[in-house]
Amino acid sequence: MKNCSLKQIAEILQHGKTILLFPHMQIDGDALGSSVALCRVFRKQGKQAYILIEEQIPGNLAFLDEEYCISDQEMFDEIDICLAVDCSDLARVGKRKDTFFNGKSTISIDHHLTNISFADYNYNDGSAAATGEIVFCLFKEMKSEIDTLTAEALYAAIVTDTGNFQYSNTTKETHLITANLYDHGIDHNKVIVSIYQNIRREKVKIISKVLSTMDFFCNGKGNIAYVSQDMLQETGALIHETEGIVEQLRNINGVEISIFLKEEADTIKVGMRAKTIANVAEIAQYFGGGGHKKAAGCTIKGTLENVKTQIIAVAEDHLKTLER
Amino acid sequence: MKNCSLKQIAEILQHGKTILLFPHMQIDGDALGSSVALCRVFRKQGKQAYILIEEQIPGNLAFLDEEYCISDQEMFDEIDICLAVDCSDLARVGKRKDTFFNGKSTISIDHHLTNISFADYNYNDGSAAATGEIVFCLFKEMKSEIDTLTAEALYAAIVTDTGNFQYSNTTKETHLITANLYDHGIDHNKVIVSIYQNIRREKVKIISKVLSTMDFFCNGKGNIAYVSQDMLQETGALIHETEGIVEQLRNINGVEISIFLKEEADTIKVGMRAKTIANVAEIAQYFGGGGHKKAAGCTIKGTLENVKTQIIAVAEDHLKTLER
Repeated sequence: MKNCSLKQIAEILQHGKTILLFPHMQIDGDALGSSVALCRVFRKQGKQAYILIEEQIPGNLAFLDEEYCISDQEMFDEIDICLAVDCSDLARVGKRKDTFFNGKSTISIDHHLTNISFADYNYNDGSAAATGEIVFCLFKEMKSEIDTLTAEALYAAIVTDTGNFQYSNTTKETHLITANLYDHGIDHNKVIVSIYQNIRREKVKIISKVLSTMDFFCNGKGNIAYVSQDMLQETGALIHETEGIVEQLRNINGVEISIFLKEEADTIKVGMRAKTIANVAEIAQYFGGGGHKKAAGCTIKGTLENVKTQIIAVAEDHLKTLER
Repeated sequence: MKNCSLKQIAEILQHGKTILLFPHMQIDGDALGSSVALCRVFRKQGKQAYILIEEQIPGNLAFLDEEYCISDQEMFDEIDICLAVDCSDLARVGKRKDTFFNGKSTISIDHHLTNISFADYNYNDGSAAATGEIVFCLFKEMKSEIDTLTAEALYAAIVTDTGNFQYSNTTKETHLITANLYDHGIDHNKVIVSIYQNIRREKVKIISKVLSTMDFFCNGKGNIAYVSQDMLQETGALIHETEGIVEQLRNINGVEISIFLKEEADTIKVGMRAKTIANVAEIAQYFGGGGHKKAAGCTIKGTLENVKTQIIAVAEDHLKTLER
């Protein structure tokens, strides 16, 4: 378990003949895009390389996978290198943990500030906006040729993990790397259309419905909306398709705290966001939950109605302390 | 009326002592951001510079204006240089036309492919994703110091006109210029919060309502939604706050043509988008309208209901020709 330089990682990779890649669970654009880019480069070098996944790839990212992904954990008897991609800790390797440690060597490449070095060789750069940025630098270190599809996979990694260069993790370096990807012939519009213009109609329907439940409190400094099981059934939407709504609520003028309630069997899952100075982790902690200052959550027993009353009361108290 | 180089524009600007800037009507992030950047730099050079506007600045862009904008057309008796910013033709200078031509010299800086050279000195670069990119290059030509607020105004210009680097107009150059703006100390997150996280709640309400009217046709290859005067009244939203909805409709999986109807006095305004191969300009032309292949519009007499029937029929015919 040691932290090492990209140069050392490049050297170790050079000696591997079979390489298995482990993007994190609940796979996203950065985990998949970075893994696809690595897989393509390894194969071009004559190595046997695959991406081991344990769930289905989200529909809007499926275009990235051109026969790289497998879900059969026992496909290889011997693996030279198992490489975790964008996994902040072992929990994110999930059920593939045993297979991961079956590798003769294990490597982790990640950009999470909270990364726990769990592999034999670890490279973590918390200043990178996406693991895709690190993979780009690794390719430079390896002097690997970056073909168009590889560059597009890295582009997908970067745009998804930076919210199209909007999140605060975005840096000058992010834009310089992206500019460089254009030199490798990327069709950025093709990637954007695939990722963002293939939304399920059920998702649009549930967003419309959820936003119609929006309520304000504390003179518009807080707002709250919910999704019930009935609403999901009526629209045919999946619960994960309500992702992003709590940010939409926060994006409203004057709103400092936004709250989104999801009805589950006999509990309500609460997601919260703060815009500037509020600390929603404090509100979450009050109900036994946790998170960061600007993004936190908790689970509360009860019905939508009474959880809404409870959480508004605590959020109002918090907003009042900010006025002092 | 001649087209000239940025170097020539820089030389002419050097000699002006009073400069009035004319961003286009229905002012947007690029027109305002570029004008603010120019205004700041001119003032630092000791010139008297103002931005002449004829409408209110949209709330989410108001942070850019720090006492640069005026609406009094008669503030100056004599103006050395009148500079049109991001105006593809004179119509976009609007009611300020006479004041514009009152300038001893007139200049136009723009990035629209359709630009008509209407000033004494014109610089137009259709390959620039935003006029903000051209202004950045002009500053390099002028060897002007770019301070943080100037860089943030250019950043605002670029992100708004490229849809956060998503639109097909975005290039390698766009990212290189943006990377450079970081060197001038921009707080990109501050700009993003100001532009995108200050949405009026009425806008969110109208979007939710409009999306609930969504209908599909031609096996989901087309979709259509509408806004009525009643809906606007009920939510308190303004008609321009429905902007972007037609793109949201297009972004749905399988949709090739999206249509958005706006109810006016006794006509219906129709906006359309195509995702890949359809040509919505053809549909618009059928009703006496026009536009581009992927974005077009027309105005049809009638009620929401019968216009919906008419436009679906023509769109269905168009979609069928694509199948052949």
